[in-house]
Amino acid sequence: MTLEPSPKRSAVVRLAAELAGTAVERDRQGGTAQPEKALIRNSGLLTLSVPREHGGVGSEWPEIYSFTRYLAAVDSSLAHLFAFHHLQVATIQLFGDQEQQARWLRRTVEQRLFWGNATNGRDTGLQLQLTEQGYRLHGSKSFCSGALGADALIVSAPRSAQPADRVFAVLPTSSVGLQINNDWDGFGQRQTDSGTVHFEDVAVDEADLLEKGIGTVRGTLRTCVSQLVLVQIYLGNALGALNGALDYLEQQGRAHPDAQESVDQAFIELRLGDLWTRYRAASELAERASRELQRIWSLPAPSASDRGELALIIAQARLIAGRVALDATSQIFDTLGARATSSRYGFDRFWRNVRVHTLHDPLDLKQRAVGRWLLTGELPTPSIYS
Amino acid sequence: MTLEPSPKRSAVVRLAAELAGTAVERDRQGGTAQPEKALIRNSGLLTLSVPREHGGVGSEWPEIYSFTRYLAAVDSSLAHLFAFHHLQVATIQLFGDQEQQARWLRRTVEQRLFWGNATNGRDTGLQLQLTEQGYRLHGSKSFCSGALGADALIVSAPRSAQPADRVFAVLPTSSVGLQINNDWDGFGQRQTDSGTVHFEDVAVDEADLLEKGIGTVRGTLRTCVSQLVLVQIYLGNALGALNGALDYLEQQGRAHPDAQESVDQAFIELRLGDLWTRYRAASELAERASRELQRIWSLPAPSASDRGELALIIAQARLIAGRVALDATSQIFDTLGARATSSRYGFDRFWRNVRVHTLHDPLDLKQRAVGRWLLTGELPTPSIYS
Amino acid sequence: MTLEPSPKRSAVVRLAAELAGTAVERDRQGGTAQPEKALIRNSGLLTLSVPREHGGVGSEWPEIYSFTRYLAAVDSSLAHLFAFHHLQVATIQLFGDQEQQARWLRRTVEQRLFWGNATNGRDTGLQLQLTEQGYRLHGSKSFCSGALGADALIVSAPRSAQPADRVFAVLPTSSVGLQINNDWDGFGQRQTDSGTVHFEDVAVDEADLLEKGIGTVRGTLRTCVSQLVLVQIYLGNALGALNGALDYLEQQGRAHPDAQESVDQAFIELRLGDLWTRYRAASELAERASRELQRIWSLPAPSASDRGELALIIAQARLIAGRVALDATSQIFDTLGARATSSRYGFDRFWRNVRVHTLHDPLDLKQRAVGRWLLTGELPTPSIYS
Amino acid sequence: MTLEPSPKRSAVVRLAAELAGTAVERDRQGGTAQPEKALIRNSGLLTLSVPREHGGVGSEWPEIYSFTRYLAAVDSSLAHLFAFHHLQVATIQLFGDQEQQARWLRRTVEQRLFWGNATNGRDTGLQLQLTEQGYRLHGSKSFCSGALGADALIVSAPRSAQPADRVFAVLPTSSVGLQINNDWDGFGQRQTDSGTVHFEDVAVDEADLLEKGIGTVRGTLRTCVSQLVLVQIYLGNALGALNGALDYLEQQGRAHPDAQESVDQAFIELRLGDLWTRYRAASELAERASRELQRIWSLPAPSASDRGELALIIAQARLIAGRVALDATSQIFDTLGARATSSRYGFDRFWRNVRVHTLHDPLDLKQRAVGRWLLTGELPTPSIYS
Repeated sequence: MTLEPSPKRSAVVRLAAELAGTAVERDRQGGTAQPEKALIRNSGLLTLSVPREHGGVGSEWPEIYSFTRYLAAVDSSLAHLFAFHHLQVATIQLFGDQEQQARWLRRTVEQRLFWGNATNGRDTGLQLQLTEQGYRLHGSKSFCSGALGADALIVSAPRSAQPADRVFAVLPTSSVGLQINNDWDGFGQRQTDSGTVHFEDVAVDEADLLEKGIGTVRGTLRTCVSQLVLVQIYLGNALGALNGALDYLEQQGRAHPDAQESVDQAFIELRLGDLWTRYRAASELAERASRELQRIWSLPAPSASDRGELALIIAQARLIAGRVALDATSQIFDTLGARATSSRYGFDRFWRNVRVHTLHDPLDLKQRAVGRWLLTGELPTPSIYS
Repeated sequence: MTLEPSPKRSAVVRLAAELAGTAVERDRQGGTAQPEKALIRNSGLLTLSVPREHGGVGSEWPEIYSFTRYLAAVDSSLAHLFAFHHLQVATIQLFGDQEQQARWLRRTVEQRLFWGNATNGRDTGLQLQLTEQGYRLHGSKSFCSGALGADALIVSAPRSAQPADRVFAVLPTSSVGLQINNDWDGFGQRQTDSGTVHFEDVAVDEADLLEKGIGTVRGTLRTCVSQLVLVQIYLGNALGALNGALDYLEQQGRAHPDAQESVDQAFIELRLGDLWTRYRAASELAERASRELQRIWSLPAPSASDRGELALIIAQARLIAGRVALDATSQIFDTLGARATSSRYGFDRFWRNVRVHTLHDPLDLKQRAVGRWLLTGELPTPSIYS
Repeated sequence: MTLEPSPKRSAVVRLAAELAGTAVERDRQGGTAQPEKALIRNSGLLTLSVPREHGGVGSEWPEIYSFTRYLAAVDSSLAHLFAFHHLQVATIQLFGDQEQQARWLRRTVEQRLFWGNATNGRDTGLQLQLTEQGYRLHGSKSFCSGALGADALIVSAPRSAQPADRVFAVLPTSSVGLQINNDWDGFGQRQTDSGTVHFEDVAVDEADLLEKGIGTVRGTLRTCVSQLVLVQIYLGNALGALNGALDYLEQQGRAHPDAQESVDQAFIELRLGDLWTRYRAASELAERASRELQRIWSLPAPSASDRGELALIIAQARLIAGRVALDATSQIFDTLGARATSSRYGFDRFWRNVRVHTLHDPLDLKQRAVGRWLLTGELPTPSIYS
Repeated sequence: MTLEPSPKRSAVVRLAAELAGTAVERDRQGGTAQPEKALIRNSGLLTLSVPREHGGVGSEWPEIYSFTRYLAAVDSSLAHLFAFHHLQVATIQLFGDQEQQARWLRRTVEQRLFWGNATNGRDTGLQLQLTEQGYRLHGSKSFCSGALGADALIVSAPRSAQPADRVFAVLPTSSVGLQINNDWDGFGQRQTDSGTVHFEDVAVDEADLLEKGIGTVRGTLRTCVSQLVLVQIYLGNALGALNGALDYLEQQGRAHPDAQESVDQAFIELRLGDLWTRYRAASELAERASRELQRIWSLPAPSASDRGELALIIAQARLIAGRVALDATSQIFDTLGARATSSRYGFDRFWRNVRVHTLHDPLDLKQRAVGRWLLTGELPTPSIYS
């Protein structure tokens, strides 16, 4: 994967190289990767998604996604944290008013904030209550990627008075009553810090409730931004697996000794040709989806149908990318042979990462939504996952 | 499939509608479709590939390919003849000198020529001899798509004195000694007139030997143009099958009665969602390849590596398009049920067309070539098929 | 496929050879194949399913199915008629009382009856009425395989007085008011005479209503017998396609000339190795299902759970056989190249046959039924298709 | 999976239950599982393969394989050690003379020997030398499953004087100069003790060279016995994954909350129906292969063609079992959702086990061998892997 020239290109390449050296060992350890999060912070790449007017780089989404994929090819846990940081920055832009945007986006640049989230919409364990002392959060959230070690969180919770009314808010991690657990134990994406966050009477400043974009079509782009992150994680792992296989084959310099040499080589070429071709098709679709997201993102008031068609192409990109990633990360081994299963190479981590991440929300439902649209013209209803 | 606005868009839409009405019956009959070739001729679309300086429309390849695919969705035999006409026009541009281009391209416009070919490079049965009376062709060629009923042919043959030296030439079909047989009997692409042409001492005007581009990198783009035609035929049939299925389902308005209704509908949605998603990914890759072909086509002197990378992406597009087309044209039936196999719908023709056309040259070798490049960096050697 | 030694083995081999000679041409023509039905009748194989006590051969189901598959490899339309004849003979055994069995089974032997059916349970257009003149049939049935040219039919219809009550009956085709149309026009299984039968006040002898087995578990074995016929048709076509490919390759004696020879040969071996391996796995499962059917068939009073487990293994056999048959009949072409698509070989008929027949009833519902049993222990409810 | 009644059935069930309790944790730890090897030893199951005349149970191969698969469903590392023990016992029977068989088989019973191996034929690092002090082994072997903690090893090495001449020998693990390393670090099959064994001038008793069967067709059955062990490991893991999924779904008792409930349930049923159906087909083929092995094993002097046909069906069983196992162990997650990826369930170990074990030797070469036989009639040449 070659990155297009851009002001931040060399920072990404350098960061990837730094993460690569320790990725296999860190996958083995799991847990939190604070030194590597520091590398990301120091890379200056956390301001990519902040508009220039607020002091950021003002990158477009296709660039941020290509960086995400590039990083995911060596370390898809850290790539996830990188991309989900930008998702939170996007959330401020989508839901915050002018003042909130100005305040938090500028702080993101000046204080080099690393954002995490506690927004799992499936988990109904968190409530926002309006008390005499102001707004308070009670309860817990699971799957809070990047919360551990973050400077600030985007949190979402229903108001206890209006349960159907889901609010987003900014919350510094230094808030009293907040407990961020190191309890993520997935067999893949092991350093995404996707643990549980407990809230015990945590105060939320009313000025930090992000309410302006709630209920707008534009606000529902948050899911689109998020779903396209997943696509990059899948493709990055597929790429990482293929790169790993090519490097290994070059180092070994020999095919399986049982084989008539030219035929065995031809079988390896056949299989890699298939996987690479499928990767390329998935990439084209993903890039098309990224361009489309950027186009809709740039509209002041996208229509429901703009948004729905965007959601469909993102769903398609996720389906295709998820499949090729599952296949590539499993089938590379057929070109490598048994010795490549030694833990010292860590080649199984690509499949484990993809297998965990492709379960984020059910791909079958995405596939069905595409078919339903085809049959009935019905666009997917915006939701926490679609 | 929606066509982009363009001066010729309505002519394509009208032509497709005309072909659609008789496509099922003509597939049953096979043989030659001269009235429908007349419709194509009258549509004015045969000058799309002729540059404006010679009086043509001067369309770019992505447009010609999108028209080809649109036509192929209703009649992929005629779409093949349409596209292979443009391949011959391209051949004149790639191999002819300035004078030859001016002469034959202008005639293409003025005399509304429909071009066919006798260039199957695998068939070594045709020889070009230099006699005292000038150049003469002896022998035969198979798989001569579009020859029957064409006004002129592009012919290729080795010079008998230098067998390795393959020459292209222009040959009016009125030439004495030329016999074009109606003997194509494939079970798919049944009206492509892909029969045998016999040559008995057929004179070729020396001024019509197209030799300037032989041996140049640019000349080898002929294969690229040709291979991307195949991609459109595959995708067009996939699209035709999916369109047919959607229309049929809408008309029937009911799912299989055995099924719990919502679940049965969901299974249909699931399957159509898969096929459409794969069609979309294949389309994106194909369109990327078309744009790339146009880019390299526009270069005065493309390098071997420009050409090689183009050949690789076209190979990938062909692989992915071929697979989704084989699957879509077979699997639509699982959403339609047994009554849709009545011959009056002709829904099996899509699979038959794709099955025949995907055997044009072996896809396994394309797949291997991609893998070989990945492992060794070796680009495909330009040849009659790669 | 090698048939086990048995008294009728040579008759089957001879019949298959006779059918093979004209199969391609008859597939092209479609319509009814009365001379070939005469060959079947003359082979003596129509009494295989008649118990010895009634003068028949008394074969077990695994043998009848292996003969069906052997015939289907050369002509799956006639194999279907052959097997559906035996399904009707089985129907008499399952639903008829002692006297009816004795009478009709003995006549089957003595008068060399060829049985057809008008039992499509999905089609509700036929009614049985009790009038002052006795029982009368009014209406029509579609998909009546083998009716045209049959001596007698098994008919099913609800009594008009009790619509939920489906009765089977024996009906000679010479009955007044019966009109058997030659209107089957499927694109595959083209000579199964699966057209429409019209009944205009057709008298049914009360003695020929087969009611004894209605409502018994044993009666529901009819669906099992029928569904295992489908499996043989799928496997027979897969085998026919593979046999055709091997013969063709042997005759051509050469691989695609573009290919480095040994590699191209290896690719062909790889693909055929896959298809054959999958055929073998499907065969083992099918044979296991046949043995199980015979075991349950031999029980005087099988339990609902005996029957349910049999239905599940038959469903599994149908799923696996259907898939390998669809794939084998399409993928053989990748080993054969473009010239093998000439209509004179008729190699596409295998895919067309399988594609039509696998839609008999929805395979997705079979697959779901297996999964449901796995999750809940629920056995498939006996029905016209399960 | 239900085990047929047999004298040892309850011992297997008990052993499996014992292994199950610690399997997830031991997979995490990797390394050697001596307490669990003791459980196997104490189960009395190590004498299954010893003929009754030597005091063993005298089980047939289908039974030993069904026990292997049953154990592999809970712990495929230990199942591998169990089965490879029996492979070594088979080796003594295939290669040893009467006296050697009597001596070592009886000792296997009386001293409750647990056998390991150092026979990797790909690794040429070990040599057998005839010195003045007798036979000596020098060098090393990799992939020595079960060597660590074994009582005795079957070792194979070429005689240094005749390198093409591969000899098998019995070697007690107490031999001086033998060093068995705990250095296996594969990402799957983590407790198979498949590390490296070093031999520094290790004496081999001439009476323990197993030479009688070398060069006989019967001797080449060793590979067949070994390859069918692999099949059980694949199927056992597939079964373990499916069992795990069913248990999990039952405990969770709910489908993904986003889904319309009945449809989501139907999608889960559809997927499990597919995996179970494919498991069943693979099982039937595997059991057919086991019965065939037993039949050939029982022949005093099997022919090359007996052996070749056996090798083919075993190759087919391995191909089909390997594929369904890779798919089932990956796809169960699509029915379970993201929470099932918690390390506490250890559900990823099934895929890791299968992925490592299916690389034992290249499955592509097996597939090609089947295709080659189909095209040419050529049977696989007996070798260390075929």
